[in-house]
Amino acid sequence: MKPELGVCYYPEHWPEEMWAKDATRMVETGLTWVRIGEFAWSRMEPTPGDLRFDWLDRAIEVLGSAGLKVVLGTPTATPPRWMLKKHPDMLAVDAQGQPRKFGSRRHYCFSHQGYIQECARIARIMGERYGRNPHVAAWQIDNEYGCHDTTISYSQAALRAFQHWLEAQYGSVDALNTAWGNVFWSMEYGSFDQIDLPNLTVTEPNPAHVLAFRRFSSDQVAIFNKAQVDVLRPLTDAPLLHNYMGRILDFDHFKVGEDLDIATWDSYPIGFLSDRLEVDEAHKTAFLQQGDPDMQAFHHDLYRAVGRGRWWVMEQQPGPVNWAPFNPAPLPGMVRLWSLEAVAHGAEVVSYFRWRQAPFAQEQMHAGLLTPNDKPAPALSEVRQTADDLAQLGTVTQTRADVAILFDYASDWAWQTQPQGAGFNYFRLVFSAYRALRRAGLSVDFLSTRDIPEPGYKLIFAPGLATLDSDLEHRLLQGCDLAILGPRSGAITRDFQIPKAGRPGLSGLSCDVDLVETLPPNVHRTVDGGGAARHWIDRLSGTAPDLLTFTDGTPALKGTDGLWYLAGFPDEHLWVWVVEMAAAKVKLDIHPLPEGLRRRETDQYVFLTNYTAAPINWNNHDIAPCDVVILKKNAPRKG
Amino acid sequence: MKPELGVCYYPEHWPEEMWAKDATRMVETGLTWVRIGEFAWSRMEPTPGDLRFDWLDRAIEVLGSAGLKVVLGTPTATPPRWMLKKHPDMLAVDAQGQPRKFGSRRHYCFSHQGYIQECARIARIMGERYGRNPHVAAWQIDNEYGCHDTTISYSQAALRAFQHWLEAQYGSVDALNTAWGNVFWSMEYGSFDQIDLPNLTVTEPNPAHVLAFRRFSSDQVAIFNKAQVDVLRPLTDAPLLHNYMGRILDFDHFKVGEDLDIATWDSYPIGFLSDRLEVDEAHKTAFLQQGDPDMQAFHHDLYRAVGRGRWWVMEQQPGPVNWAPFNPAPLPGMVRLWSLEAVAHGAEVVSYFRWRQAPFAQEQMHAGLLTPNDKPAPALSEVRQTADDLAQLGTVTQTRADVAILFDYASDWAWQTQPQGAGFNYFRLVFSAYRALRRAGLSVDFLSTRDIPEPGYKLIFAPGLATLDSDLEHRLLQGCDLAILGPRSGAITRDFQIPKAGRPGLSGLSCDVDLVETLPPNVHRTVDGGGAARHWIDRLSGTAPDLLTFTDGTPALKGTDGLWYLAGFPDEHLWVWVVEMAAAKVKLDIHPLPEGLRRRETDQYVFLTNYTAAPINWNNHDIAPCDVVILKKNAPRKG
Amino acid sequence: MKPELGVCYYPEHWPEEMWAKDATRMVETGLTWVRIGEFAWSRMEPTPGDLRFDWLDRAIEVLGSAGLKVVLGTPTATPPRWMLKKHPDMLAVDAQGQPRKFGSRRHYCFSHQGYIQECARIARIMGERYGRNPHVAAWQIDNEYGCHDTTISYSQAALRAFQHWLEAQYGSVDALNTAWGNVFWSMEYGSFDQIDLPNLTVTEPNPAHVLAFRRFSSDQVAIFNKAQVDVLRPLTDAPLLHNYMGRILDFDHFKVGEDLDIATWDSYPIGFLSDRLEVDEAHKTAFLQQGDPDMQAFHHDLYRAVGRGRWWVMEQQPGPVNWAPFNPAPLPGMVRLWSLEAVAHGAEVVSYFRWRQAPFAQEQMHAGLLTPNDKPAPALSEVRQTADDLAQLGTVTQTRADVAILFDYASDWAWQTQPQGAGFNYFRLVFSAYRALRRAGLSVDFLSTRDIPEPGYKLIFAPGLATLDSDLEHRLLQGCDLAILGPRSGAITRDFQIPKAGRPGLSGLSCDVDLVETLPPNVHRTVDGGGAARHWIDRLSGTAPDLLTFTDGTPALKGTDGLWYLAGFPDEHLWVWVVEMAAAKVKLDIHPLPEGLRRRETDQYVFLTNYTAAPINWNNHDIAPCDVVILKKNAPRKG
Ligand SMILES: [Zn+2]
Ligand SMILES: [Zn+2]
Ligand SMILES: [Zn+2]
Repeated sequence: MKPELGVCYYPEHWPEEMWAKDATRMVETGLTWVRIGEFAWSRMEPTPGDLRFDWLDRAIEVLGSAGLKVVLGTPTATPPRWMLKKHPDMLAVDAQGQPRKFGSRRHYCFSHQGYIQECARIARIMGERYGRNPHVAAWQIDNEYGCHDTTISYSQAALRAFQHWLEAQYGSVDALNTAWGNVFWSMEYGSFDQIDLPNLTVTEPNPAHVLAFRRFSSDQVAIFNKAQVDVLRPLTDAPLLHNYMGRILDFDHFKVGEDLDIATWDSYPIGFLSDRLEVDEAHKTAFLQQGDPDMQAFHHDLYRAVGRGRWWVMEQQPGPVNWAPFNPAPLPGMVRLWSLEAVAHGAEVVSYFRWRQAPFAQEQMHAGLLTPNDKPAPALSEVRQTADDLAQLGTVTQTRADVAILFDYASDWAWQTQPQGAGFNYFRLVFSAYRALRRAGLSVDFLSTRDIPEPGYKLIFAPGLATLDSDLEHRLLQGCDLAILGPRSGAITRDFQIPKAGRPGLSGLSCDVDLVETLPPNVHRTVDGGGAARHWIDRLSGTAPDLLTFTDGTPALKGTDGLWYLAGFPDEHLWVWVVEMAAAKVKLDIHPLPEGLRRRETDQYVFLTNYTAAPINWNNHDIAPCDVVILKKNAPRKG
Repeated sequence: MKPELGVCYYPEHWPEEMWAKDATRMVETGLTWVRIGEFAWSRMEPTPGDLRFDWLDRAIEVLGSAGLKVVLGTPTATPPRWMLKKHPDMLAVDAQGQPRKFGSRRHYCFSHQGYIQECARIARIMGERYGRNPHVAAWQIDNEYGCHDTTISYSQAALRAFQHWLEAQYGSVDALNTAWGNVFWSMEYGSFDQIDLPNLTVTEPNPAHVLAFRRFSSDQVAIFNKAQVDVLRPLTDAPLLHNYMGRILDFDHFKVGEDLDIATWDSYPIGFLSDRLEVDEAHKTAFLQQGDPDMQAFHHDLYRAVGRGRWWVMEQQPGPVNWAPFNPAPLPGMVRLWSLEAVAHGAEVVSYFRWRQAPFAQEQMHAGLLTPNDKPAPALSEVRQTADDLAQLGTVTQTRADVAILFDYASDWAWQTQPQGAGFNYFRLVFSAYRALRRAGLSVDFLSTRDIPEPGYKLIFAPGLATLDSDLEHRLLQGCDLAILGPRSGAITRDFQIPKAGRPGLSGLSCDVDLVETLPPNVHRTVDGGGAARHWIDRLSGTAPDLLTFTDGTPALKGTDGLWYLAGFPDEHLWVWVVEMAAAKVKLDIHPLPEGLRRRETDQYVFLTNYTAAPINWNNHDIAPCDVVILKKNAPRKG
Repeated sequence: MKPELGVCYYPEHWPEEMWAKDATRMVETGLTWVRIGEFAWSRMEPTPGDLRFDWLDRAIEVLGSAGLKVVLGTPTATPPRWMLKKHPDMLAVDAQGQPRKFGSRRHYCFSHQGYIQECARIARIMGERYGRNPHVAAWQIDNEYGCHDTTISYSQAALRAFQHWLEAQYGSVDALNTAWGNVFWSMEYGSFDQIDLPNLTVTEPNPAHVLAFRRFSSDQVAIFNKAQVDVLRPLTDAPLLHNYMGRILDFDHFKVGEDLDIATWDSYPIGFLSDRLEVDEAHKTAFLQQGDPDMQAFHHDLYRAVGRGRWWVMEQQPGPVNWAPFNPAPLPGMVRLWSLEAVAHGAEVVSYFRWRQAPFAQEQMHAGLLTPNDKPAPALSEVRQTADDLAQLGTVTQTRADVAILFDYASDWAWQTQPQGAGFNYFRLVFSAYRALRRAGLSVDFLSTRDIPEPGYKLIFAPGLATLDSDLEHRLLQGCDLAILGPRSGAITRDFQIPKAGRPGLSGLSCDVDLVETLPPNVHRTVDGGGAARHWIDRLSGTAPDLLTFTDGTPALKGTDGLWYLAGFPDEHLWVWVVEMAAAKVKLDIHPLPEGLRRRETDQYVFLTNYTAAPINWNNHDIAPCDVVILKKNAPRKG
């Protein structure tokens, strides 16, 4: 696979006479893909049924004939104002019971049947018109599901759908009462229509109730997406895709991904460091204009799994954005670094957002490759340089990693539902494991609980995995030389009960969680020999050997040959140690890396990316600030 | 009185075949009391009128015949789902106007007449069935009034009841207008039905309006409780009680307590330190796994007053809980320490919450004496040891203290209504006084404004007492050798006006508050000779002698023989000094104690409790970490 | 003009027999003005149409015949309870959709036509009765527009009025769609009645939508005010005024001011330092009991512009207030200092709030000149002393300043709508410029964009000025020797688009903003030679010379002879430097002042005010703590 570059473009924002010149400049910049259409419903259908596709016909023709492949978006993230008149109850409702009104985007409830039909209708019209158009080489359905907290809605449509969903899941209300433990606090229901959405309760609702609602809400996204997939499939041979976001975990991306051909995501490294990572001030300052060194790679690897190997960056940050608390510019070189890093992780396409900065509306302060008055923005030359780099690289194919992390969206819902300690969350835990592996110079694959493969990995980590049944335990053990669970793994059933067999309830390891503790941020439990656990402590008993102990003598890590259980949320030092122990155990080479340097192997290359603002010399390689060094593997070095 | 131990148990959560074994184990653990029933309405009456008490009959029989005395709870804190269908307007409404929905507990408005009748009905049914049952040795009415901020409701039921309450209080709307000073900002009403609840106003409502609503809301709790008392009294001779909470001050516990026989409370030392005390990080860290050294004793002493001498701990934390921001485990020894400390303060019974950790629903992460899969949790052996300790101690009776604190719930409502400085609140002030007295090794009694006794105490403190009339002043001066008021004592009338006679308006002391200042946390006013005042400064004039002065020359403490007035909110150092001066004045021995050590005298014993994680040697006694040393008084020591 | 003193008084709060004595004491204190009536609607008209002015007749007579000039307020900030019965939909609605209820004050929506008519009615009745009364020497309309966030309302009345306002502004909905860029995200409207208020949207609404709503909301205040002006003008020759607040920028004070004769404002130095300034803890502590040394002067100078030269302090803080987070007392001397400082900036009258502290209702903890029980409060003697000072000073007239700041309310709305960086706001930027000029010992005038005068100033600063057209640029260049723009000047059109001509779009300076960055608080960009920029960086290109550069080589200040553009938000050091450079350029003497000392020149005097708690020796003058030194200019010193 030869990676390519693309860009997001909005012909409807610009005079038609600019289109051809824009297309030419895109090609000159080295771009081969262009995404259009995904917010243009009011121009496709200004009033109900009044279809106006002539402008889009021409736009596709202009772009396509310039040599660009078009990704065509269905515009269902932005229903026009008239849609609301047709379906006044289509709006999502927030947890306080307020409708989330028209005036921006994503103003729909995923459970609204009328709106789903409207989406299928516009998708059909577009599919019929463009499904066989030679320039339309891919289809994007909707845009950024879940962005702006839109997965969860407390609308009447959601309420009715949730009651039906529960009926389908549980069959009888007695079964539901038992599964949820509703006898507690007399919460038993007499019929499904008595079950409300779990907001505005006096104190916290039953976690089983919340988790069911979270599962339901995730399913509604998959159903919504599939309605358009089903319409488009017969009408086109081009791949279908969606553009996911960073650290939005409200729906099961694996499930949505099953219906699509390619996973793509929207990568905003500087914004995401600023608004969605639990890191300290010093780290935020050090990487202020570069982004976190692991955040992008984490998502690249995750979405590679979601896309079953096929994935893109659909929107790549090219400069300051408009939506983070603070919006500095990338350091020179970073746009190229991010692009090449994506390629190292297997991106087929890296597409920049957007071609030209819009002078109006919400995102007018969001940089593009061109300024609003058509001058080159700083990123443009880096993109051109990246295109040259890619031409030199040629084919890049992915090597299967030795290490995998089991990633499970439902675990995030569970631990959000009942964090037990304010510092604990699933993403934070998994991300700390990922960072530790990357600091050890390792490449990492992600796995869903459904796709643990055979033959296996050397190591699989499953921290915080909420629910673990014997089938999954079996597949896990088969799938790798050493599986490392904990903390908080196997801690609940699907119905949010403590398993009858105990926690983690492993048949392969005598290890029981007798007691759980959560700790404030300034308190940690030190481990004999170094490192510490923070936030979460599983107090363990059982006959499995203690591989590490806390300084108070309780187990910090228990394990047998192929299965370990970590008792606490490791700090950075403890992670280093655990990774070293595990690597030694399974005879895996590690490459400890300095702060901000990262390493990724493909079949052909080793990529070294320097996220810092200072030069790094590592293993006899000089890597300039914000630069990438690419080593060809058949000229092997010690890197 | 020989103190005993008990436990909270939910037979409806467990298969009936486990009950007998559970009962046996309880007895073996040294428990003699068991509380049941308080959340089981949906099992007593699954649908309206369908009464099912057979399981409860059997549960009581099994427990009782094993030798346990049963506390039977009325289940009115958890109305079943069908209740809401019968009374759709029974829900409380929050300050934003949102109904507080079904799905957890305490989902009722105290002013809803229909629901009060339902509660009386189920109480009558239970009273008729179990009122003379020999195993039922006490009755708990409802559960934790005020928990989850449920005292105050902005419902239509509350609105109507408030208007009637106002009419009863003021007689005419003109009288109300005058009492509230409604001429200010043209807030005058033409009739009682024009008076709304004091939420959602443009800026703060009239404090007189808010305080009236707070008094009303408190009265509604007492009325609600009394409806069940009135039903049960003729049907049983067993004592009636309620289980109060820690630092919930939204209703007048003295008033509710007047209708009951015993006050009990639910003591969660670690959770309360974490979520409801204004202490600094270092203190929180030092006592993270022990709880604050004064928080439990404060409530023990307070509820001893509420119960007119008779009080229990109904729910004693036995391990990590689920509801605080962070939930660490108690250090070994603490469960026993908390229990013995309660006994030292006069608890008749200490009852643990709960017998076995539930594997489902909201509190599944709340530890019990047994783990969910029936293994002993760490607390079990400490409870067994405590039972042995109690057997050795035998009778423990309370000595009246030399020092008392006047505690007034309405003062808390007043100063919440108008704190004037963000750092000032009533509980914080009173608690600082209590801590100072305990640091001086003194035992403390609490008094309500209604029950200042004769003959009196050596010292009575009344810091922050909002309203002080001449009758109360008179009783106070009769009741003790030295009464210490201030800061912010006698500062308003019942109708939240500055008294015409001035502040504090004492006839026995020439001392006027001319000006009030509040200070940010980093600013304090030093006192000549040491110590400082924080948060609140009453600038005083008058001819009473200045006993202490601020370094700017203004009075910090004024007083005559039997009456002192403190001008500011003392810091720890100033409190030490004030307590020493007062003790010297009334010839009271003090025993200054090191950090974390506390001392309590009963008729027979002196208890020394070490809340720290390090051994303490004090006065020739070695007290191990988290341990209690009990000295028999007829072998007197200098302790 | 000989400055005078006054006081706010509420005869309706006190027994009539106290009035005469109060009036006598006012005169003895040296007061000549008294404001009354502005909250007394319920006493003027207890029920609809039942007019009761006899008490007010007598009050005016008592005060007037004692020698006091009366400012009579229309009571429209406090509609009585019956008004709500007549106009149930008159309440403002908050951004969450909740009506803002009766029970305090300012409970009306500016767009409610029915209420506007009621206000005109009561103003007419008062004007007819008192318009020619010889004691009524000025009229105040309403009270503190915008206080308690009351400018903006999301009511139905506001919605309808907004739609009409848009129609009047844009003519056609197509024009509006284009102006707002509604093609973005398919936000295009089909008719004006489809346009909602911009609250409760899923993510941020179109900034053009918000800014239009902010402009509309500001206009509604001016219309509301003008309705009373139009009624009163024919009925009286006395000047009409309104009392504005500190740092309330929600409406265009210049526009409201055009319809009035005098601008007045309510100056609460200690409260404002505590609750509305972005300064660090150390600064807040140093000036805790004095207020910020520039906050009062800033507003004095601003309201002098709003009043076109005529302005008062209508409410001067005399002691602790009740509404700030912390409410300490002013240091001795500060009430006099604030008063004389106002005089130095041109106040015709300084009026204290209030005569006697009210013992009831919301402001009972707000100090007055007398305590609630009629004793002198600390401020009283300072006011008496100030009266003596004024008698000595005689005439004080204002010298036009050499330096001006262009102040534009709409720029604040714009940058609130889209701050782009959490640390950036318009007031903060302008205030930092003002402080820098005052630290340099300069007097400053404010200008609105409408009144840049000819002939001009030496320097005009226009930091953060959102919109700059060629006419304004022309007038600016004509109006001064050197105009200093930036950062974020000329950045958007009136419809919140990036100008087609680029930013700042100056014809007189080759300087383009290519990229904008915002920075977190702990990050700054240093400037070669010293100082740094924070919060906001405009990255500049263009052929204009770089007068300063950042250490990364990019321009920090570009400029030609008469026009400079600042690239970032200067820190204190950079401001010093920029002011020095600019002063040198235009040959303007500066007088660098130590911390807390300020200097103001009038035609006759130089005022030196020491805001610190320590004595200052400056330029051979000794200024005691909290004191003012007044130098007569015809006895010139080097000061
Ligand atoms: Zn996006
Ligand atoms: Zn409880
Ligand atoms: Zn005011």
